[in-house]
Amino acid sequence: MTSPAPFKRLDFITLLTDFGLKDGNVGVMKGVIWNIARWVKIADLSHQISPQNVAEAALILRRSAPYFPTGTIHVIVVDPGVGTSRRPIVAQIGAHYYVCPDNGVLTMMLEHAEAEGESIRIIHADNPHYWLPEISHVFHGRDIFAPLAGHLANGATLEALGTSLDNPVRLALAAPKRMEYGWKGEVIHVDHFGNISANIRHEHLGEPAQVQVQLCGFTIEGMVKTFGERPPGELVALYGSTGNLIVSVVNGSAAKRTRAKPGDPVEVKVLT
Amino acid sequence: MTSPAPFKRLDFITLLTDFGLKDGNVGVMKGVIWNIARWVKIADLSHQISPQNVAEAALILRRSAPYFPTGTIHVIVVDPGVGTSRRPIVAQIGAHYYVCPDNGVLTMMLEHAEAEGESIRIIHADNPHYWLPEISHVFHGRDIFAPLAGHLANGATLEALGTSLDNPVRLALAAPKRMEYGWKGEVIHVDHFGNISANIRHEHLGEPAQVQVQLCGFTIEGMVKTFGERPPGELVALYGSTGNLIVSVVNGSAAKRTRAKPGDPVEVKVLT
Amino acid sequence: MTSPAPFKRLDFITLLTDFGLKDGNVGVMKGVIWNIARWVKIADLSHQISPQNVAEAALILRRSAPYFPTGTIHVIVVDPGVGTSRRPIVAQIGAHYYVCPDNGVLTMMLEHAEAEGESIRIIHADNPHYWLPEISHVFHGRDIFAPLAGHLANGATLEALGTSLDNPVRLALAAPKRMEYGWKGEVIHVDHFGNISANIRHEHLGEPAQVQVQLCGFTIEGMVKTFGERPPGELVALYGSTGNLIVSVVNGSAAKRTRAKPGDPVEVKVLT
Repeated sequence: MTSPAPFKRLDFITLLTDFGLKDGNVGVMKGVIWNIARWVKIADLSHQISPQNVAEAALILRRSAPYFPTGTIHVIVVDPGVGTSRRPIVAQIGAHYYVCPDNGVLTMMLEHAEAEGESIRIIHADNPHYWLPEISHVFHGRDIFAPLAGHLANGATLEALGTSLDNPVRLALAAPKRMEYGWKGEVIHVDHFGNISANIRHEHLGEPAQVQVQLCGFTIEGMVKTFGERPPGELVALYGSTGNLIVSVVNGSAAKRTRAKPGDPVEVKVLT
Repeated sequence: MTSPAPFKRLDFITLLTDFGLKDGNVGVMKGVIWNIARWVKIADLSHQISPQNVAEAALILRRSAPYFPTGTIHVIVVDPGVGTSRRPIVAQIGAHYYVCPDNGVLTMMLEHAEAEGESIRIIHADNPHYWLPEISHVFHGRDIFAPLAGHLANGATLEALGTSLDNPVRLALAAPKRMEYGWKGEVIHVDHFGNISANIRHEHLGEPAQVQVQLCGFTIEGMVKTFGERPPGELVALYGSTGNLIVSVVNGSAAKRTRAKPGDPVEVKVLT
Repeated sequence: MTSPAPFKRLDFITLLTDFGLKDGNVGVMKGVIWNIARWVKIADLSHQISPQNVAEAALILRRSAPYFPTGTIHVIVVDPGVGTSRRPIVAQIGAHYYVCPDNGVLTMMLEHAEAEGESIRIIHADNPHYWLPEISHVFHGRDIFAPLAGHLANGATLEALGTSLDNPVRLALAAPKRMEYGWKGEVIHVDHFGNISANIRHEHLGEPAQVQVQLCGFTIEGMVKTFGERPPGELVALYGSTGNLIVSVVNGSAAKRTRAKPGDPVEVKVLT
């Protein structure tokens, strides 16, 4: 499990999975990585993605990855296709690396990079020299993706890891629709606090003088800039920390109040 | 995002929040810190503080921080006032640093330092040079507190970060009352095992020969030194690992047995 | 809290407990370790072992430890006997170290090492020089086990930590029984995804041409190699990533489907 003459060592790896934290599987991936690259610092992004929910992982990745240093390697294992012929991939998108099954989890990163004109290289990581010697049918996070990340950190080139690939799987992400009255979108995430994110974003709406937000039978008049503008317990709409329209209860849970869940429609009427 | 000539690098940062672990927000804070101070080791204290519960975070901090090395930076973001005018602060209390909103979360650390005669310096961290370039209205953990911690680790002085402040917000913590019969206090924490902590402490009670502890309609005769003195399943009172009176079920859950919750009264009758 | 002339520094420590993540106790152990050995990288294996469930910790440890680098120190604190006379131990088993109460949690590691002819040394860690100065009756993870791990990482020899011990507590682990029709075993773990592990393993069954797996009133015809062989929602039997027979629902939860829990019988009929 050596790698070709390392030319550059990378220092940071993040892990994003649906493994939960109780079974030791996340820890095992760190052990495998440190066997190959002892100096690496590893941050958990989340291990509580809903089982097999690739779209949720794609969103968390899009919101989180840009805050890490140049050269960070992001390992994402939400893998409903483990043990099938779906391909393991390694991608360099802009200044970061991504190691994951080819199941669409990079869709939002790729769309953003394409919009920004950032460089993109994707490899089908099919060289078993950079995997563990034995590959199970059920835990490729340990057997394939963690070793790939370790070898990348250790200076392996993308070329060494496999062969070029130009048709990565993409998710069909629901885009908000322009309507006569404004925008119609949907709920894409409900966070730990019960804040509800819609796929309607600042670049769609801008800063309208007067809007009405409708969700699950609730109507919110106007948007606020910050929670502090309204008293605790009030349902408000505002832009979240990554530019999405969010619906919140000040110091409370909008998810409990509205019972909204991913996929529910969100409508924004622009009144003036 | 550079800092003035570093004179000292700090190695350890802890994170204590109510963010939960599913949304990637804790990971993002680590990314921001490592962008500024690549060598830092980061430990999670807890991210499962009840939402907006500053008093709970104050207690966990008080119990945990002293076990970290000199020079550790503790970042605490339980922030019901995010987006309001509440101040971001940086404090040096004894040999540790604290970065948090000015909402009282340091109350117990300050009271302890004052009792022990330790040094205290507090800064209103109002110099945006040490924040991220763009500040959201909803995620100051990422935009303000993580960068402040990174710059502190990188050797920024407190003076550089902002202006001195001498009136930090303090929580009104319930103190136990001296009664004719003994002490009357209240439940301040219920831990993962269902152990119930009261605000009555060893310095109040000492080691009385005979006591009766009353809680939620249950009466416990006497205190034990350790769980091993009684059989599994028995309700006992003893001193916890940080000196508080705790009520436990041996190898079981006192919370399930008694249904006690924070704020419930605890009475200790000192019989001899 | 110094140690004798260090001859070797160790770099990696893992933590495995039933502490949960909300109370700060895991973070405190990291602080204690870093006070003694500042360079150590620490990975969490799990902190969600069911309270006092030593057998569950033994299984997670057996599945996880081998994937860490040579010289890793594994700290396991699932400790129903805290505050009793149960002994703190430090063991060197093959190329790894283990620090834990002497309660049987090493049983599977010891059995494996004995089967493989690996070296085993066990110490009753009774030298309080390597503990914290003050020992509580309820949190030996902080007061005894974390400091022991730190000193080991710092180069303390096993001899320095205490006295040799040759009768470690062993768990009576249920072994599967050879039956006329095949094997009868039991459920030993249910993971985050609802996959059900039995104690029947590849070395018992091999690769039979035709089997029938019975569990909680469900009968599964045949074993698959991988989830991808069957459609989502189907109940399947296969070998898990560590060689145990597992029962799963493809992209679903076998635990929800079958309501199986640890201890439930699993029968495998070998038909040809």
